[in-house]
Amino acid sequence: MKAINKHSETALYCQVVDLISESIDDGTLRAGEKLPSLRHLSDTLAVSVPTVRQAYLELERQRRVIAKPKSGYFVRGRSPGKLVRVASPSQSPAPSPVICRRLIDRVYDGVNRAELVPLGIASPSNARPAAKALHRSMKRVMSRAETRSLGYAHQLGEPNLRRQIAWRYLDQCGAHVDPDTICITNGGQEALLLALKAVAEPGDVIAVESPTYHGILELIDSLGMLAVEVTTCPEDGLCLERLEQVLAAHPVKACVFSSTLSNPLGVSMTSQARQQLVGLLEQHDTWLIEDDVYGELLFDGNRPTPAQFCSDSERIITCGSFSKTVAPSYRIGWVIAGSQIDRVARLKRAFSVTSGLLPQLTLADFIATGDYDRHLLQLRSVLRLNAERSRALVAEHFPSSTRCTAPVGGSVLWLKVPGTSTETLFDQAIDVGISIAPGAIFSPQHRFKQYLRLSFGHPWSHSVEQAIAWLGEACHST
Amino acid sequence: MKAINKHSETALYCQVVDLISESIDDGTLRAGEKLPSLRHLSDTLAVSVPTVRQAYLELERQRRVIAKPKSGYFVRGRSPGKLVRVASPSQSPAPSPVICRRLIDRVYDGVNRAELVPLGIASPSNARPAAKALHRSMKRVMSRAETRSLGYAHQLGEPNLRRQIAWRYLDQCGAHVDPDTICITNGGQEALLLALKAVAEPGDVIAVESPTYHGILELIDSLGMLAVEVTTCPEDGLCLERLEQVLAAHPVKACVFSSTLSNPLGVSMTSQARQQLVGLLEQHDTWLIEDDVYGELLFDGNRPTPAQFCSDSERIITCGSFSKTVAPSYRIGWVIAGSQIDRVARLKRAFSVTSGLLPQLTLADFIATGDYDRHLLQLRSVLRLNAERSRALVAEHFPSSTRCTAPVGGSVLWLKVPGTSTETLFDQAIDVGISIAPGAIFSPQHRFKQYLRLSFGHPWSHSVEQAIAWLGEACHST
Repeated sequence: MKAINKHSETALYCQVVDLISESIDDGTLRAGEKLPSLRHLSDTLAVSVPTVRQAYLELERQRRVIAKPKSGYFVRGRSPGKLVRVASPSQSPAPSPVICRRLIDRVYDGVNRAELVPLGIASPSNARPAAKALHRSMKRVMSRAETRSLGYAHQLGEPNLRRQIAWRYLDQCGAHVDPDTICITNGGQEALLLALKAVAEPGDVIAVESPTYHGILELIDSLGMLAVEVTTCPEDGLCLERLEQVLAAHPVKACVFSSTLSNPLGVSMTSQARQQLVGLLEQHDTWLIEDDVYGELLFDGNRPTPAQFCSDSERIITCGSFSKTVAPSYRIGWVIAGSQIDRVARLKRAFSVTSGLLPQLTLADFIATGDYDRHLLQLRSVLRLNAERSRALVAEHFPSSTRCTAPVGGSVLWLKVPGTSTETLFDQAIDVGISIAPGAIFSPQHRFKQYLRLSFGHPWSHSVEQAIAWLGEACHST
Repeated sequence: MKAINKHSETALYCQVVDLISESIDDGTLRAGEKLPSLRHLSDTLAVSVPTVRQAYLELERQRRVIAKPKSGYFVRGRSPGKLVRVASPSQSPAPSPVICRRLIDRVYDGVNRAELVPLGIASPSNARPAAKALHRSMKRVMSRAETRSLGYAHQLGEPNLRRQIAWRYLDQCGAHVDPDTICITNGGQEALLLALKAVAEPGDVIAVESPTYHGILELIDSLGMLAVEVTTCPEDGLCLERLEQVLAAHPVKACVFSSTLSNPLGVSMTSQARQQLVGLLEQHDTWLIEDDVYGELLFDGNRPTPAQFCSDSERIITCGSFSKTVAPSYRIGWVIAGSQIDRVARLKRAFSVTSGLLPQLTLADFIATGDYDRHLLQLRSVLRLNAERSRALVAEHFPSSTRCTAPVGGSVLWLKVPGTSTETLFDQAIDVGISIAPGAIFSPQHRFKQYLRLSFGHPWSHSVEQAIAWLGEACHST
């Protein structure tokens, strides 16, 4: 590395710029990594803090680094082309019961194989497991609860945990939630099941984002309901004009949307769009079931207010979960059922009686100690870094025609690779030990055949880097 | 206490008889308690073992004690009148969607109130909680699995636990079960949900025992199916002649029966009757979903072979659970789905993805160490004792017209109290801090209004005794 030469004709700040640029070029500093603090670098290089600041501003201008408020400066990855449109369903698609059951089966088979590089499953908490702190909470709870920890939990779920959940909405969104309208569920998926069963019947039409999380499609399918797709935009989320057309064309009973960090797009609606959404659905007497499982995983930590708390409508239900933020294995989610709480409670009882008690007590303790918030801070920061790193590798290895989302949170990228069948890519990837999620499973009509979802919710490793590189190269040769 | 007088004219064995009888009469020895062993009493009284044996045989003849193979002699409680018939549905009852939703709600409300004496809920493992051994297993598993214990479990459930479950059927019933046809569920209730959804549609007719477990009725109701009742007999279980009539009269898609320890009757079908049942259902192409959650709780420890393993029929599914035997809070059950495993696996994924990992790993460890079998031995013995004690108290305090089952396992008595509205009794009992299960919730047609179910699956205590006494007295005054 060249040292700083105070007698050179080159301005000191420019020398700092060169130094950092070269470190980025030779891989010493990598996409997503944090630059040294102003003070630290000023000490190290024996230059003034203003000089370093000037250098960093210049690097930002050159788009080599990004400034993040209160966090510092980070190396910007080479960006892949930005995804600005997704394959749009025709103007008025027919509601459809068809989903890619077999393909989804095969994607899940991959989950069962620990030897695969897991780019197929969205499990953000895996990027930074909180095992130690959680185990501490669980052991504390076990010694406190003893025999009681074996019996049935309260029907709606542990009162303490429900209070904690309500408190977080108040604290983060200023929304008041009555804990007795919350029912604890077996993860977010059962929350969606109970919500959907509470408001819709077999044969009913359910609107979903296009693309949407395949678990929602499987649920709609298994309940004998029909899915109709609503176009989304990678930068704004749900397209409200298209939704209006769909509501006019079909007797939509309920919508299952994620206005915060939709999966796989990783985009959030603005609060204005959220308001418009609620108004539109009220006009049509349509239920909104909001899948809010990513609400706490925006990189900047600002949780948007779920639609349910933006209106007085009684036709909105919010579903949340601890599976994405801390422990999928605990199977603890919740549904904020509002006026439907009695129906939801009965369905819960009929379908699975109650949820596991020990994980509920453990999570309540984990939140109360502050460990949960500390964990979230670190998790978000790892996820943000992983996102940058993954996007940089996509830019490096995938064909130049590839387009990729720039998610504001969560743990997935959504890619379009023109000319590539991602179902074929899925098969090839499994053969070499990599799991991905092919685009077709995100649409009841098997759209998105040239798309794929890549998860970055895992501890970063050489094998992850190699896997993304391999996928990119494989797309060149198809 | 009188001593034995070797010079008396009364035969020695008669003196022993008197001694024991008086101890029973004055409450020193209580219903269900074990008499001293032959050798022990012979030492204590300084009489020969044959003398004591002769005394015990005489006491047995006098119906004061019961001999139990390999266990010894036990004090027989005063028996209440035996229930030999239950209110029979009319010959061809119409399938019905009507259940006592509100009454069931209120029974469950009681579960949430720790201050109530819990005679309303069947939770046998509560009679002898295995908290210490289970916690030991869980701590072992936590330190072994660390981070892995936070991730999703295998789709069908932990392979190790499924192998253990399969092994137990082989060991206890000689039945071979492929572990890959087992899906781990959120308790027995989700097992029933998945089984029923796999083979039947909304609108289909489902046959149930009359009376049957209210959870089955709520499930059928919530899936939009119709229930039709089949008469049972407290001594033989399901009445096959009536089943034949029901099958002839209605297009029954599936039956949900418990051929082992049906709830609330606590009776098991003979293996011959089980064979006939399977043959009958095969003739009608009707599915059998067997609720086998009490399979391991016969007092004598002999597990009957579930119907699925008595035949080659592919139309039988077995549902089991660890909730009744060890830990309701773990929410771990299973469904042996046979040919339907792929359908069941998809439904499981759509409804709740997977079941909790830590409890699965813990139970696998708990079984592997032998702790589970040791626990079951002790649990069965406590339950048998509680059954005797409860029956004795019923005989003592309830009106003489009361009829009561003599269960061969499980944790409930089923009583008929002529002239008493058990729904009214339920209200009165809640007011004084006792929960019971009124008969009406065990029938889609609200039959059994003069019946109630009393649980003896709890640690025995003075307050339990007082509660049963109070209930009996209350029945006198209605």
